[in-house]
Formats: sequence, C-alpha cells, structure tokens
Amino acid sequence: MDFFETLADRIDAVDSVVSVGLDPDPSRLPDAVGDADLPRWAFNRRIIDATHEHAACYKPNAAFYEDPDGWRALRETAAYAEGKGVPVLLDAKRGDIGNTARRYAEILDHVDAITVNPYLGRDSLQPFLDRADKGVFALCRTSNPGGADLQDLELASGEPLYERVAALADVWNANGNVGLVVGATTPDELEAVREIVPEIPFLVPGVGAQGGDAEAAVEHGLASRPDLPVDVGLVNSSRGIIFAGEESSRPGDEATYFGAAGDAAKRLKKRLNRYR
Amino acid sequence: MDFFETLADRIDAVDSVVSVGLDPDPSRLPDAVGDADLPRWAFNRRIIDATHEHAACYKPNAAFYEDPDGWRALRETAAYAEGKGVPVLLDAKRGDIGNTARRYAEILDHVDAITVNPYLGRDSLQPFLDRADKGVFALCRTSNPGGADLQDLELASGEPLYERVAALADVWNANGNVGLVVGATTPDELEAVREIVPEIPFLVPGVGAQGGDAEAAVEHGLASRPDLPVDVGLVNSSRGIIFAGEESSRPGDEATYFGAAGDAAKRLKKRLNRYR
Repeated sequence: MDFFETLADRIDAVDSVVSVGLDPDPSRLPDAVGDADLPRWAFNRRIIDATHEHAACYKPNAAFYEDPDGWRALRETAAYAEGKGVPVLLDAKRGDIGNTARRYAEILDHVDAITVNPYLGRDSLQPFLDRADKGVFALCRTSNPGGADLQDLELASGEPLYERVAALADVWNANGNVGLVVGATTPDELEAVREIVPEIPFLVPGVGAQGGDAEAAVEHGLASRPDLPVDVGLVNSSRGIIFAGEESSRPGDEATYFGAAGDAAKRLKKRLNRYR
Repeated sequence: MDFFETLADRIDAVDSVVSVGLDPDPSRLPDAVGDADLPRWAFNRRIIDATHEHAACYKPNAAFYEDPDGWRALRETAAYAEGKGVPVLLDAKRGDIGNTARRYAEILDHVDAITVNPYLGRDSLQPFLDRADKGVFALCRTSNPGGADLQDLELASGEPLYERVAALADVWNANGNVGLVVGATTPDELEAVREIVPEIPFLVPGVGAQGGDAEAAVEHGLASRPDLPVDVGLVNSSRGIIFAGEESSRPGDEATYFGAAGDAAKRLKKRLNRYR
C-alpha cells in the first residue's frame, strides 16, 4: 500500500482528518514526564495513548528532536504510533542536493511521510519522490507572516510563486505520492491551489494555535482521488492539542492533563467533520 | 567578535578560504575508523588533524548526522574543530515557522554558523538572524541542476527569484551576520549576485566534486568589508578532500589515506589563492 492508501484507510477507520503535531517543547513538558529517561518520548507516548482514536496521523516536527536523545525519542515515538495503527509524517522541511538528499531520504526508513522544501528543485526531492510507498509533502504556501516574502512573489507569467510550486509538484508526482503544505490562514490561497492540483492531498497547518479557517481547510484541503475510498488530506494542530491540559489540570494530575489532549483532538475532529 | 570577524581572522591566519565539507558517508569510511564507538567522529577527527592548517572553516552537512549517534558525532566534531581554532558552519538548510524556528536556532549553541533555506521568509529566519555573533548563510542560487526550477524563475519585476532573494537577504542583514550560498557552477550568476550585495560573503559550493569555476568563486565569492582585515568568503569542497585517499592508499594504510586529504586541502588552498 502506498502512503495515501494507508492514510485513506486510517481516515476512514477513525472518521478523522486530524493530524496531531508532536512538538514536545522541553520547557512546557509536565512534571509527570520530567524524570523519565527520555522525557519527550514519555510525553509523546502519553499523548498518543490519549489521542490515537481521533488521529489520522502524527506529525512530529524534527526541530524538537535535533539532539542525540531527541532522535532516540523520535524513533521510539514513530514505532509506538505505528503500533497503534497511526501513520507518522515527519515535519522536517528538508531539501538538499545529490548525495546529501539521498542521505536525508533515509529518514523515511523510520516514518511514513515527510515534508520537504522545494527551493532547491526537483533533483533535491527525487530521493524522497522515489520512495513510492512514502508520502512527500512539499511546502507550497505556508501560514506564517513571512510566507509572503518569497511565496507570493508574482512571476513574469502572472501567477504567484506558490502556484507555480503547486504546478511543479504535479509534474513531480509520477508516483502519486506527493502532497502539498498549504496554510489555513489564507482560505483564498487554499482554493487557488486546489484548482491547480485537484487530486493532490494537502497538509493544512494553522487551524489550532494559529487560528486558521477550519471550513476552508476541509473544503479545499481534502482531495478526491478515484482510487481511494474517502477524500484524503490532513488538518494539523500541535500545541492546541498536546498542551491543552496546561490550563485545566493541577500539577501532578497526569490523568486530567493528558485527558485534555484527548478531548482537544476529539473536538477538532468533530469541528472538521462538520464540513466533510 | 561576530562570525565574519572570526572568519576573517582565520582566513588571515592560515591564508586560506577553503571550507572543508565533513560529509562522512558511512559507506565510504575506511576500515581504520569502522570499529570506533562513533565512526563518523573518529573519521572527522583524523580529517581535522590532517587538514586544519589549510581550513578556513569546517562545514558538516547535517544530513550525515541525522540519527542518535550522528548528533553525538557532530557535537564532538564541532568541539574538536573549535579546539583547533577553526570555525564550524553547519550546513543544515533549515527554515521553519514560529516556535519551531526558535527551536532549530538552538543548534547555534554548538556551531558558529548555519545555512538556512529562505522559502518560508523572514520570520522563519529571524531566530537565526537574532544571534548576532553567529553566521547565517541563506540559500540563494544552488549548484544542482534543479536549482533552476524555482531559483531561476523570472519575476514580474524582471529579475530571477535568486536575485530577489539576495536583495531580501541584504534587507534582513541588520546584524551584519548574513551570508549567501551561491554555486560556482554558474559564474555569471555569482557575478550578478555580487553586484546586488557587495558586502555579503558567499559560501560557494561546487568547486570540488561538482567541478565549478575556482576563479569565479574567488573573484565574486569574497566580499570586501571595510571593517575586516581581509576579503571574506568560503569556497567549499567536501568529497574532493575527505575521500581523496580512496585511490592512493592501500587498505589499512591510515597515514597515506588521511595524508591525501591534507594534500587535497592544501592543493585547493593554493589553487584558490592564485586568484585572491
């Protein structure tokens, strides 16, 4: 099965397009996991236990694992999520040349999909694209303020750069394993990209802490592919789910803390399902 | 001292603008280091011993360290290079948003400079730029074939995207710590970028294994800054130096193997110095 078949089955099974971002910021981890050998892994395991029934995928951001213990925590997390039947999309935003790109692509031995940065062009992504069973989400239009600096630049041909990136991704999609990252803070842009690539699933960040538009994320973020049983795409929330317990729980009350994460994932699932 | 002052002093001290790329591909490491606890660190240490007298900086590419032992090897390598008085530029090509970008920027606690990807715009780079004592090299025009896919796109304003990136980098350079990555496989492009940003140092890859133009790399890659004692910039070679011993040495002959790396670094230094 390729990644989008796996993802479609998962979406179908849990009736959810929620991607849960696993960004275990060490400064925000609750005391309950602080004494563990690998606090990030201990935290992620409890988050997965609390949220997996509502999770279409887990999306660890590589930035939170860039140290010796971090990569151990990441591998444990990925293996545990797989054990729960949930695909793992590593938000790494990688992209490099030649033998270096091939080396980065080996990360895919441990996860089901990855985000990549298109600035270095096709050959920088080819080692990822060649892994036909893995998903490759290229950054297209990101939800941060600076996303406009390059991505919105108007090309001589008339369209903004991010629309050209979408069109290029379509060309690069020989294996049917390409997705795009398109932010929910810009619903018009979501719609514009969807028109260019009707069958490419989007990963839509920015619906949680960043406050994006859930309706547009679902309406335009999910792709109908004739070979798949359900429309496929992902709407991500990270801090809005994993740190939901910060306000509601007392120090040491682990059950309430992680229960809040499960509740937040369930609420987002329901909110998104209103538009599916 | 900020990064470019440190780099200028180093260039002056060893009369070299050579950046030695530390890309310890596990499949190419000699038997002599294969049994070490951390083979990549054992390899890098011997490479540093053999080449440091000719090295303006070391440039490990993060792709070769993306696993638990890898990050240990990277930290040992960086500390050892610092001990030899050689700055370390981590070729990570990172770029992400908000709290994730801040997290990535913590890598700068362990190295002197980093390469970043500009596709996500200014706020994605701000946590790096804010580290005024560290160097931040933004990808501008890369030397791989796919570099043209996005970077050469003509904007409505008439210039190619990579020239706009150079102009933006100049705006983002409030702390004077910005550099640009501009490939040597395209001498005309090196010259065009230099005209836009007269005082920004370049990191020029592609002179070694990729066969770029050494003269253009030196002529346009080095920047004259009135506050620095010498023109500053870096010309990188990775495999052309670190694996130079593969042909000339017999299995087990460690002295010849690593001696060849030292000779290769010295040769590149002299070749580049003809144009300085």
